[in-house]
Amino acid sequence: MINVLAIDAGGTSTRAVLLDETGHCHGYGFAGGGNPVSSGPDRAAASITAAAEVASDAAGRPPGDVGHVLIAMAGMSVSGPIDWVTTPLAARGFPATAHVASDLLAIYFSGTWEPDGYAMVAGTGSAGIRVRGGATEATADGLGWLLGDAGSGYWIGHRVVGAAVASLDGRAEPTALVPLVLEAAGIEDSRERGPDGRSSSLRALAQALYGLRPVELSRFAPLAFAAGSDATARAILDDAIDALARLFDAISVRDLAGPLVFGGSILTSQPRVSEGVAEIIRGSGFDPEIRTVPDGVVGAAVLGLRSAGIDVTADIFDRIRSTLAHLR
Amino acid sequence: MINVLAIDAGGTSTRAVLLDETGHCHGYGFAGGGNPVSSGPDRAAASITAAAEVASDAAGRPPGDVGHVLIAMAGMSVSGPIDWVTTPLAARGFPATAHVASDLLAIYFSGTWEPDGYAMVAGTGSAGIRVRGGATEATADGLGWLLGDAGSGYWIGHRVVGAAVASLDGRAEPTALVPLVLEAAGIEDSRERGPDGRSSSLRALAQALYGLRPVELSRFAPLAFAAGSDATARAILDDAIDALARLFDAISVRDLAGPLVFGGSILTSQPRVSEGVAEIIRGSGFDPEIRTVPDGVVGAAVLGLRSAGIDVTADIFDRIRSTLAHLR
Repeated sequence: MINVLAIDAGGTSTRAVLLDETGHCHGYGFAGGGNPVSSGPDRAAASITAAAEVASDAAGRPPGDVGHVLIAMAGMSVSGPIDWVTTPLAARGFPATAHVASDLLAIYFSGTWEPDGYAMVAGTGSAGIRVRGGATEATADGLGWLLGDAGSGYWIGHRVVGAAVASLDGRAEPTALVPLVLEAAGIEDSRERGPDGRSSSLRALAQALYGLRPVELSRFAPLAFAAGSDATARAILDDAIDALARLFDAISVRDLAGPLVFGGSILTSQPRVSEGVAEIIRGSGFDPEIRTVPDGVVGAAVLGLRSAGIDVTADIFDRIRSTLAHLR
Repeated sequence: MINVLAIDAGGTSTRAVLLDETGHCHGYGFAGGGNPVSSGPDRAAASITAAAEVASDAAGRPPGDVGHVLIAMAGMSVSGPIDWVTTPLAARGFPATAHVASDLLAIYFSGTWEPDGYAMVAGTGSAGIRVRGGATEATADGLGWLLGDAGSGYWIGHRVVGAAVASLDGRAEPTALVPLVLEAAGIEDSRERGPDGRSSSLRALAQALYGLRPVELSRFAPLAFAAGSDATARAILDDAIDALARLFDAISVRDLAGPLVFGGSILTSQPRVSEGVAEIIRGSGFDPEIRTVPDGVVGAAVLGLRSAGIDVTADIFDRIRSTLAHLR
C-alpha cells in the first residue's frame, strides 16, 4: 500500500489529503496560507505542516507511513529550493523530499483526469494554462497586480475604488459604487470640502486605501456585483469578461479542444462573469466542456499519485473526488 | 529693504530664489529632491538648505538679512509641523519660521499674477486647482499612482508597460511598444519559451519591473510618444488627453474664465497632449489663455512676497520673471 500526501498550498488557505494508490482518500486537513511569497516561508511551512498532520491523524496513518509528498503552489514559488518546507515536514516524520507542481496544474486536474485541456483561474489574481500530455504547454497572465492579473479580483477591485474616487473627485459621473465603497471602507459619506477644496470623504478614503497592500483592493471586487444595474459597475464587469476571454484566446490552439476548468472565486461564484466568458469563447468557435472547481486539492492528489508512478484513470479520478467529498 | 527667500521644493529637485520687495531677484539656487515624503525629511531638508545657501551666497546677502521664508511643496507635505526643515534653516542663520504653500498654487503663480484662474500639472503625477482671490478654491486628482494621477507620466508609463506585457503574453495585438520597452529595460528580445510556456523576455521584464517602485514606471511614458503611429501607443495618449480634459472639467466653473497654467513635463513638453487637452477645453465652451511654466519657483516668489504683506502687481510679477531669467 502506497500512501501519498498531497498538499494544495494557496495564498489564503492550505489543504492536505492523504490517499492510497487506488485514489481512496483517508484523511483531510485544512490550515492557513501556505504560499511562501505572500505568507513568508516560516508561516507557510507552519500551515503546510499543520494541514499535513491533521490529514495524517484523520487517516489514522502516521507520517512515517507516507511514501510520497506532493505540494502544489503558485508558479513563482515552484522554482528554487524547498528546504523551508521539507525540513519542518521531515522533523514531524514525513518524508524528507517532496515533489512540487504548479497550482494551475492542480486546478486543472481537480476538474479532469484527461491529459489535454485548459485551466483558467480568476481569484485575487488571474492566469491560464494549456495542458498537453499532462504537462503545462503554455501559460498566460499570472503577472501580478501591477502588470497583469487582468479580470481578477484585484483588477476588478482596483477599478471599483478608482471609479468611486474619480466620482468623488468630480472627474467621473455619479455611481452607486461611491456609497458602497465608502461603507466598505468604514468612511462617512460627507461631501463637505476642506481648505484645499477636497471632500473630507475623499481624503479619508484615499488615506484608508493607501494603508492597504495593493492586492487587498480585491476585497472591493464584490461591490461591482452588488451595484446592480449601475452603468459604471457594469462597464467594469464587461471589461473583466473581455479580459478573461482574451486570456483564453492567448492559451488556446485549434488542435486542442478541451475540457476547460474554471477556478477562483470570480470564475466559480459569479455566473455573470463565467457565463459571459463562456459565451465569448463559444462565439470564437471553441466549445470546450467547462468544469468548475473550488480549489486545487483533487488535482494535487492526482499529481501526487502520478509522482508516485501511478497512472490516474477515470476510475481513480472519480474515486478521489467521491472519497474526498465524504471527508470535507 | 525686505529680503524674501522663496523655495520651490519638488520631488526630484528644489529651487530657491532670494528677492526684494520690488520683485527683483538677486540670487538663485538649485539642489536635489526636497519633498519630505519621497526623499525623507533629512534629505529633503538638506536639499532645501543647500538651495537656500546657494541663493543667499549668489545674492551676496547673508542668511541673517532674510526677513521671510516661503516653501512651496506638495499637498500631503503641507499639513503638519515643519520643524524638520525650519530647524536646519535656522541653524544656518535663516529665520526660524517659514510659511508653507501648495506646490500647485506655486505653479499657478508662476504663470500669472492674476488672482482668479486655473492650474493643471501632469508630471510624474497629475492634479488641478481652481484659484479664486489668490487662494485654492477647489482641487482635483493628485490622488497618487494607485488611485488617481490620471493622464500623468506614471499613468502613461504604467499603460505602456502593461501593453507591452500583454502583447508579449499573447493577450493583446503586437505593438511597437514591445521592442521599445524591452530596450528601455535592458532586456534582450527573445520569444523562446521556458518550461512553463512563457517567453524568457516576458519573465525577465516582469522581474525587472517589479524591482522598481511603482511611480518609477513614469520613466516609460516617453515611449508612448516615441512609438509614432503605433495604434496601441496612440490609444494610450488619447486616453491621457481625455483624462486631463476631465481634470479641467472637474475644477472649472462657468463664472471663472482663466487663465489656465500648465505645468509638469507631460503638459509642457508634449504638444500632442497639451494641444489635445486645449482643443477639448475649447470645445466645451471655455477659452482660457493657456500659459506653460517649467516649475513653481516664480510662483513661490510671488507667494513669498504676499506672505510678507506685499501686493504683487503685474509690474512686480514681470520683474520677478525677468530678473530671475537672468540668474538661471
